[in-house]
Order: sequence, then structure tokens, then C-alpha cells
Amino acid sequence: MIGLEQIKEIARPTPSRIVLLVIDGLGGLPHPETGKSELESANTPNLDQLATEGICGMIDPIAPGITPGSAPGHLALFGYDPLQFTVGRGVVEALGIDIDLKAGDVAARGNFCTVDSDGLVTDRRAGRISTETCIELCMLLDGMNIDGVSISVSPVREHRFVAVFHGEGFSSDLYDSDPQQEGLPPRIVIARSLEAEKAAEIANEFIARARAKLSDCHPANMVLLRGFSKHPDLPTINEIYKLNAAAIAAYPMYLGLAKLVGMTSLPMCTSIEHEFDIFTRYYLKYDFIYIHIKQADSAGEDGDFERKMRILEEVDTFLPQVRDSEPDVIVVTGDHSTPAVLKAHSWHPVPLLLYSKWCPPDGVTKFSERSCIGGALGRFPATDIMPLALANALKLKKFGA
Amino acid sequence: MIGLEQIKEIARPTPSRIVLLVIDGLGGLPHPETGKSELESANTPNLDQLATEGICGMIDPIAPGITPGSAPGHLALFGYDPLQFTVGRGVVEALGIDIDLKAGDVAARGNFCTVDSDGLVTDRRAGRISTETCIELCMLLDGMNIDGVSISVSPVREHRFVAVFHGEGFSSDLYDSDPQQEGLPPRIVIARSLEAEKAAEIANEFIARARAKLSDCHPANMVLLRGFSKHPDLPTINEIYKLNAAAIAAYPMYLGLAKLVGMTSLPMCTSIEHEFDIFTRYYLKYDFIYIHIKQADSAGEDGDFERKMRILEEVDTFLPQVRDSEPDVIVVTGDHSTPAVLKAHSWHPVPLLLYSKWCPPDGVTKFSERSCIGGALGRFPATDIMPLALANALKLKKFGA
Repeated sequence: MIGLEQIKEIARPTPSRIVLLVIDGLGGLPHPETGKSELESANTPNLDQLATEGICGMIDPIAPGITPGSAPGHLALFGYDPLQFTVGRGVVEALGIDIDLKAGDVAARGNFCTVDSDGLVTDRRAGRISTETCIELCMLLDGMNIDGVSISVSPVREHRFVAVFHGEGFSSDLYDSDPQQEGLPPRIVIARSLEAEKAAEIANEFIARARAKLSDCHPANMVLLRGFSKHPDLPTINEIYKLNAAAIAAYPMYLGLAKLVGMTSLPMCTSIEHEFDIFTRYYLKYDFIYIHIKQADSAGEDGDFERKMRILEEVDTFLPQVRDSEPDVIVVTGDHSTPAVLKAHSWHPVPLLLYSKWCPPDGVTKFSERSCIGGALGRFPATDIMPLALANALKLKKFGA
Repeated sequence: MIGLEQIKEIARPTPSRIVLLVIDGLGGLPHPETGKSELESANTPNLDQLATEGICGMIDPIAPGITPGSAPGHLALFGYDPLQFTVGRGVVEALGIDIDLKAGDVAARGNFCTVDSDGLVTDRRAGRISTETCIELCMLLDGMNIDGVSISVSPVREHRFVAVFHGEGFSSDLYDSDPQQEGLPPRIVIARSLEAEKAAEIANEFIARARAKLSDCHPANMVLLRGFSKHPDLPTINEIYKLNAAAIAAYPMYLGLAKLVGMTSLPMCTSIEHEFDIFTRYYLKYDFIYIHIKQADSAGEDGDFERKMRILEEVDTFLPQVRDSEPDVIVVTGDHSTPAVLKAHSWHPVPLLLYSKWCPPDGVTKFSERSCIGGALGRFPATDIMPLALANALKLKKFGA
């Protein structure tokens, strides 16, 4: 694939505008009774019309067979090779609750867990304590200072929390304390490199103090940490592609992922309708707008085929509003598939449509998994989406002499 | 492509089972009279049914335009980038005659050849002496010991043999002695690096002694050595993919290639029927079984279109036996094409079908070169087969947070 440095050389600012509509978990699998997927079952006349006028294909977000997490799935959509650029687990969790990580901060994903009198983990999730309990326990642990490193502890949901270590030279080069299975003791945090020795000591001291503070809080009488990581400091979408980009979403994590690549975060939304309202209010200010629709993925993860179908139909009704804004390029796709029959993210490639006046229609007249297979774009890596979108917006100069 | 280290991170052991059926030289070209390939001409109702229920595509074993040897062709099927992982010529020949190379052993492919009174090679294959003669001559050369390095010489077929150098610190970093054309003298073996100087001396001494011993054996009065190489010490399929894998084949080389990646070698078979008998006897003990069918390639190399067709039909009759074992995933493909009209391995992409309950049918109803082009998998590198098979067996966790 072409590298970001090479794209950067040929990208140029123009007034043309691109809309990237990401329907999270878009791809699906056939319902056992009808033999049709969510997208094939949904009534989506506007998406079908756009597929008819544009060109279609199927994307592999990471690689064939690989099920994407949200972070690598989105990095790929934004053109960053997710096998090269990684975002640590701790950072993703922090983004998910809108923590603004500073340069040097190290975030870790935490679990409250249960240990027995021998110190062995008997429940990695402490019986999935309530979010209310999680909030109380985080207050108990929040604000420690160990050797000049301050540690903030923030609740996520149920047994999950985020710990952020803030202090000069604190390294993220640490192994997890989470043993990943029950019946074992939590691991001592070990440094992966010499310069992380001090950080390992501090992390272990934090865990020891947390254990002491939680001794009366059974079942949540211990913590497990994993995914120590720093803000990945990615090259921004603005400097690479010369875009003035903005993101619209209803969940902090997706605005967070967009901010990681330098997009402006537009006001957090509360519904699909709200997202398109925000779009209509802001589209003239940006030449690249990314709209993230979470609900299709949630319905897929719940195994709710009907609800996923209805959400796709709802998104479809807002397509004319996007078209009315007359963008030069519209891309509709997902960051991965979430088939309701699998109740989980999956490895299946994701339908994509690309509309611009420079795309000769390819004969695909329905936006679905099966029809996109035969589209002009074929099956291709998601990292090609940005170059294709930019090209169709005439934002890329010739490569080479 | 995703690296083996990255796959290793997300692979997990499960009870689900995968069958990889490799029909060597599967792909073909149209018969000049009928315009149909071997696979298109053969009556293969069971393969067609499996193609109908699963998804299809075309693989490039190494890269478009590149004709694979057996070793890189198989490495790619097992998920090892054949451009990164190489198996030397000497090692491949040794595997082919079931020599169990020890760590440190260096194998070289040998030719008996003819040299004239000036020492110039007049026939690189010594008139293709009979295998019987080859066996006798190998006995003449076998068992030398030079400076603590023992050299075993084993017959292959006709003028071909394998020499294995066994001794402390013997390096494989040596240039060939085979000049690759007639009218030139055999080359002195030259070290590619300083630490191979001693090995070069020993190899040259071996060649000198062989020449002396063969002086009365015209036309086989000299030897040529090439492809000095060691066991490549590949990461195993078991550690990468967490599989308990076994191989079924009728030729030592294919069991040898499977052993290189850590598969268990099941008893050597004598016929296609025997291979499927072995499959039925052993399938419950393994979660990954690779079955190699050699005969299609041999027929293709002989230019025998009809025989290749009949072999494909014979393989087809055993498909129900594989399905009866209820594997979670079945992959049918080849390690390369061997069109009868070319009488040789070729660069043409190879049809592939993948069957699992997580593959929505893609409309392909015939297993053939032309129909697979339109399959859901499109055209893709063979190294993607393993991730796809593992994904469809639910053996891969999500990548990234």
C-alpha cells in the first residue's frame, strides 16, 4: 500500500467536500429463516439509489479473516495501517469515557476483581458489580500520588475502570498484571525495558495500596491492570491529507478516535437524527466530515436482527439530507461487520459505496453484502478508502513525474 | 499482510475442526478442442455442491505471475509468507526422500554428471542414468568423513541424489558447484562468508574424492552440488495458530513440508482412497487436517488432460466422506496450477472454496477457474487462507481494542 508520507506529498487542499458515513457493524450474515442479511432485508431506497449512481465494493478492515476492534477498524478507515499504528487498550478505554490524555500520560484498563484468602483470582470481574459501586470504589482509589506520579482512577461501567498515571518519565513499557484466567494470583507488573523499571515499581505500589483500600469491599477486593499505553501521537489527517476534518458521533470513543487523528470533534449527539442535524449545521465549515452511527453495531451485538434492520432503515432516511448538502464525494461503509446471528464483531468484509461524479456506475443497484461483491471496487483493504475518496474529490496530485 | 506474530496473539485453541484439502496442481487451462479446463470438464458434483454452499475465490500462491515450487506453494497455504520464509533446495530434496535432518545438518541437492578429459561438463545429468545405477553410485560415495564432518549420500531418482553434511559448525553459506550449463568446468565451492571457509574446503574435498571414486563410472564420472541449506527452523503451526495439526499424503516431500511447520505426519498413503481412509481413522484426534493429493499435478506435468480430469473426479467421490466427519471448516484448493497443456507448474491463480456455516453463499455453484473468479473471496494471496479458515472456525479473537 502507499504510505502516509507518500500520500502527504501529493495531497492538496481544495474546496471540494467529502462525507464518510460509518455505520458501525454494518456488515451482516443471512437470517437463518429468510437467507437474507440485515442490509438485504432492510428497505433502504436511498442507499440503493446511491449505490446505483456510484461504485461499490467490499472492504477488509484489517486483513481477511481478522475481526477488528473499534480502534484498528477506525484507523484503517482513516487510512492508517492498523497493523502498523496501534492504539493501546488503556488509551481506547480512556477515549471511551472522554478522558483527555496529556502527552506522557499512561492509561491502563482496570478491572475490579475478587481474590481469595490465598490471593488467587476467583472472579476477574468481581461478579460484575454495579456501575454505582464501581463509581464509589473509583473514588476510594482516585488521586494517589506515588513518588511524584499522580494516579487518577475513573469508572467506566460495571467492573471496568481506567487508571491514568501522570508524571515525568512514566513509561508505558509494562506487562499486564491481569493473569487473564482465574485460579492464578494477579501478576506483578514487570518492566519490558530498563527505563520502565521505575514505572513498574509505582504500578505495583498502586496495586498494593488499592488492595489494602479494597480489603473490606468483597467481591471487589482487588484490581487487575492491562494495556498500559500512551497517546499514540499519530500524524494528523489534516497534515497528511490537507483536510479540515470534523467528526460527528454519539459516543465519546468515536469522537476520541477521530481526535487521535486530529479531527475536530463536533458536539456529542444523542440520536441518529441529532447527528444529521449537526451535520447540516456544520457541513459548510469542513471539507471532510466523518459521521459515526453506533446503533447498528449495538443491535448486532445484542443479536437483534430486526432492530439492526430498522436502524439501517432509519439511517437511510437521512441520506437525502446528506445529498442535499452536495458533497463531492460520499462514502458509506462500516468499520467491521457485526452479524446479528454472531452477536459479535466479525471478520466478514464490509460493503462500501463510493459516490462522486467521477465514478462511472458499475451496475450494482442494491447496497448489500452480496451485490457489493460484484462492484467495480472489488474486495480491497480499508486503508485504500481515503486515497479513493481524496482522488474522487480531486484532492490528489499526480504521483511521480 | 498480517504477520505471524500478530496472528499468534489472537489465535485461541477451540474444539472446532478444519480440513485443508490440497489438490496439487489443481488449476488448469482450457483444452484446445473443448475450451474447457480440467476442472471444468470433470464431473465433480460434490465439489460443486460444496462451492454452492460455501464461498469461492482465486488464490495467488506467491504473487501474480509467479510460478511456485512445491515448498513455497505449501508454505503459503500454511500461512507463511513464501517471500520471507525460504526452504533451501537441498532441504526440499532431503524431505522428498524422508531424510530426517538434524539441527545443524546441511543438505545439498546433487547431480551425477559427465565431465570430459578437460574437466568440462558435457552432460549435467549424466545421460539420466537409471535409479538403480544412482543407488549403486551413492553407496560408493556414502559415509565419507572429512575433518570430523560425516557425509551421507542418498539416492533420489535417475541422476539425482542428496548429500547431507553432518558436523559441528558446518555452514550452509556456500555457493553451488553446479555451473548450470554445459561446456564449463564444475565450480569450486566458494564460501559466502568468512565462517563458511572451512565448510567450503570440506565440500571441495568431498567433490574431489567423489570424482576419484567415480573415475571409472562414465557417464556418471563427476558430481555437481547446489542448494546447500539447513532445516529452516520455522515457527510451528501449533504455536502460531494453537492447532493440533496432522498431515496426510502419499509422498514423503509433502509430509516433510508439513513436518517443517510442526504438523504430525500420519502414515504414508499409497492411493487417494487410502488417504481418505486415514482421514476417517484419525480426524477426531486433530483439529486441523491437511490432505495432500499429488496425482493431479503428476497428470498435469505429464500433459495428460484426461487423467487429471479423472483424478479430480476421483477426489470428488471422497468429499462426502470428509463432510460426514462434520468439520467446522473445509478448504479445497491447490498449491499451484499445473495445466496439462503446459505440462508444468504455472503461475495461474488457483480456485479455492471455503465452506463453513459462517460463509453466506456467494452464488457460485460450480468449482472451477472461471466460476471462482466471481466468488465472494475474489482474488487473494494464499497466505490469507489460514486466517480465513481460523476465523470461520471461530479460532481468532478480535484484533486490537
